Amino acid sequence: MTNLKTVTDMFSPMCETMHQTVSEIQSNIVDALEAQDGKKFKTDTWTRAGGGGGVTRVLEDGNVFEKAGVNVSAVTGEITEKEAPMFQTLLARVNSPIKNAKGACFFATGVSLVIHPNNPFVPTTHANYRYFELSAPEGSVWWFGGGADLTPYYLFEEDAIHFHATHKDACDTLSAESYSKYKADCDEYFYLPHREETRGIGGIFFDYLNNQEKDTIHEFIKKGGQAFIDAYIPIVQKRKETPYTEAQQDWQHYRRGRYVEFNLLYDRGTLFGLKTNGRIESILMSLPAKVAWKYDYHPEEGTEEAKLEAALKLPRDWV
Amino acid sequence: MTNLKTVTDMFSPMCETMHQTVSEIQSNIVDALEAQDGKKFKTDTWTRAGGGGGVTRVLEDGNVFEKAGVNVSAVTGEITEKEAPMFQTLLARVNSPIKNAKGACFFATGVSLVIHPNNPFVPTTHANYRYFELSAPEGSVWWFGGGADLTPYYLFEEDAIHFHATHKDACDTLSAESYSKYKADCDEYFYLPHREETRGIGGIFFDYLNNQEKDTIHEFIKKGGQAFIDAYIPIVQKRKETPYTEAQQDWQHYRRGRYVEFNLLYDRGTLFGLKTNGRIESILMSLPAKVAWKYDYHPEEGTEEAKLEAALKLPRDWV
Repeated sequence: MTNLKTVTDMFSPMCETMHQTVSEIQSNIVDALEAQDGKKFKTDTWTRAGGGGGVTRVLEDGNVFEKAGVNVSAVTGEITEKEAPMFQTLLARVNSPIKNAKGACFFATGVSLVIHPNNPFVPTTHANYRYFELSAPEGSVWWFGGGADLTPYYLFEEDAIHFHATHKDACDTLSAESYSKYKADCDEYFYLPHREETRGIGGIFFDYLNNQEKDTIHEFIKKGGQAFIDAYIPIVQKRKETPYTEAQQDWQHYRRGRYVEFNLLYDRGTLFGLKTNGRIESILMSLPAKVAWKYDYHPEEGTEEAKLEAALKLPRDWV
Repeated sequence: MTNLKTVTDMFSPMCETMHQTVSEIQSNIVDALEAQDGKKFKTDTWTRAGGGGGVTRVLEDGNVFEKAGVNVSAVTGEITEKEAPMFQTLLARVNSPIKNAKGACFFATGVSLVIHPNNPFVPTTHANYRYFELSAPEGSVWWFGGGADLTPYYLFEEDAIHFHATHKDACDTLSAESYSKYKADCDEYFYLPHREETRGIGGIFFDYLNNQEKDTIHEFIKKGGQAFIDAYIPIVQKRKETPYTEAQQDWQHYRRGRYVEFNLLYDRGTLFGLKTNGRIESILMSLPAKVAWKYDYHPEEGTEEAKLEAALKLPRDWV
C-alpha cells in the first residue's frame, strides 16, 4: 500500500478506510487473474510530488492476458490555481459548501483496471471504484464513483447476461433502482459519438454518489469489487481455450482501435489524469498492446463480427 | 475533383483556384508514392450533407507503404448555431470584419496526407495545405494554413537535413524569415506535453496566414506541395530496401502509439473534424495500421532507439 503523507484532520476516516478497501480489491483481482494466467503481475510503487502515490500492477505477454493493469492510487494535496478550473467542474456536479476550489484540499483514492486478453473470444474489461473528498474552512464534500463494463469482440449473450446479472446483485444491495440507473449511465458514458456506437455491451457506471450514508455506499463498493471477480473470471475460464484464427485476431486488433479512440478522446479519468500531471504510464496502461486501424472497414453482413457491431448500435437490456 | 455546389458570389475566385491547386498536389503526390510502391491507390469520392465533399485516396498493405492516405476536401455552408463557437475561436485569431460567426458562410479546401511506411527506416510523414474563407454581409476574411513534418523511427541526420532544407527553399520564396518562424511553430505544434517530447523531428507549420497578397501565398502553397515530394520521396527511395529485424519493427509499432496519442489528444484538424461531423474515415485515416503500447517502456541507453528519443526531447536546427 502507498505510504501516504499523514492525512490531516481535515479529512474523514473514510479516506483511509476506502484506501484500504481499494487496495484489498486490487489484491483480490490480481490473485484471481494470476490464477487464470499462470504468470505473475509485476508491481510498481510510485509517489506523487504533490502528495500520495500509488501501486501499479501490470501483467504483459501473459498466457491468457496480453496486457492487464490493476492500479491503486491515493493522492492528496492543496488545489493550485492551475488545477482549480478542473476541480470547479467537479464541484458543480455536487451540492457543496465549498464554492471556490482553489486552496481547498483534496483526497482521492481508487482502484482502476483494464484487462486485454490474448484470445479474441475473451472480452476486454474495465472496472474502477473510487472515493473523493474535498475539504476547506467552509466545510467538506465527498462522493463515490465507479463501475465495470465489458467489451467483447464476439458477442456471447450468456456472457453479457452473466456480467450484468452479477453486477445487478451488487447494485440491489444499495437500492432497487440502482442497477437500472447505473446500467443506463454506463451505456451513455461509454459511447463514441463519432462512431455512433457504444464501447462495449455495458455494465454499470456511477459518479458523484453521496445520497446515502458513507458506510452504506462503502459496503456497496466492497460488493462491487467482488462482483467484478464473480462476473469476469468465469467468462475468462469458459473462453480462454477457444481456438481462433488469424482473421479473428485481426478483428480483435481492429476493434481495439475503438478502445483507444474512446480512452484518448472521451474518457474522463484519462483526460483528468493527463491534465493534472498524473503518472502517465499508469494512466495509459489502459491502452491495448496490439491495435490496428483499417480504412473504412466493415464486416460482411451475417457474420459474427457484424453481429457484434449491431449490438453496439443499440444498448440492450441484459437482465 | 469534387463536384462542388455552386460557390456563390460571396466567395473570392481563390476558393476554386485553391481547390484546383490542392487537387493537383494530391494527384502529383499520389503518382509519386505509387511510383515508389508499385501498388495503386484506391479512390473514394464523398459528399457532405451541408455542402461540398471530397476525394479520399488510400493505399493499404502496399509493398512500401503500410497505410497511406491523401485526402482532398472542399466544403462550404452556412455556420449553424451549434458550429458557431468553433468558428468563433478561428475568428479570434485573425483581423476580421465578421464579429459573429453564426450565419456567416464558410468555404474551406485543403489537401491532407499521412504516410505510414512498412520499413521502420522510412519515416512516417504528414503534410497539409489548406485555404479558408468566411463571408457575411459585413465583409469577408480569408487565410491559408499548412505545413509538412517528418516522424522517423530511426534518426538519420542527413534525412532530417534534406527534409528541412527542401522545405526551407520553398519558404524562402515567401520571405527570408518564413522558414525559421514556421520551423519553430512546427516544433511547438507537434508536441506531446504528457510525454514531454515532439512528435517527430519537425518541418514547417503555419496557420492564419494572410499578411501578403492571396496570389503570393498561393504560389508558395504550390511550391510547398512540390517541396513535399522533393523532400520525402528521395528518403523513401534511399531507405525502403534497408533490411530490418522484428525488434526494429516492434519499435516502430511502439513509436506509432505516440502518433495516435498526438492525433487523438491534440491534433486540431482531427478534433475539428470530429466535432463538425466530418467524414470519420477520412479524418481517422491518419491512424497507423499496426500500433503497439507497452507499459513503461524505455530503450536501452546508447542504442539507436534511445538516440531517436533524445532527438525528440529538444528540437534542433537542421539547416
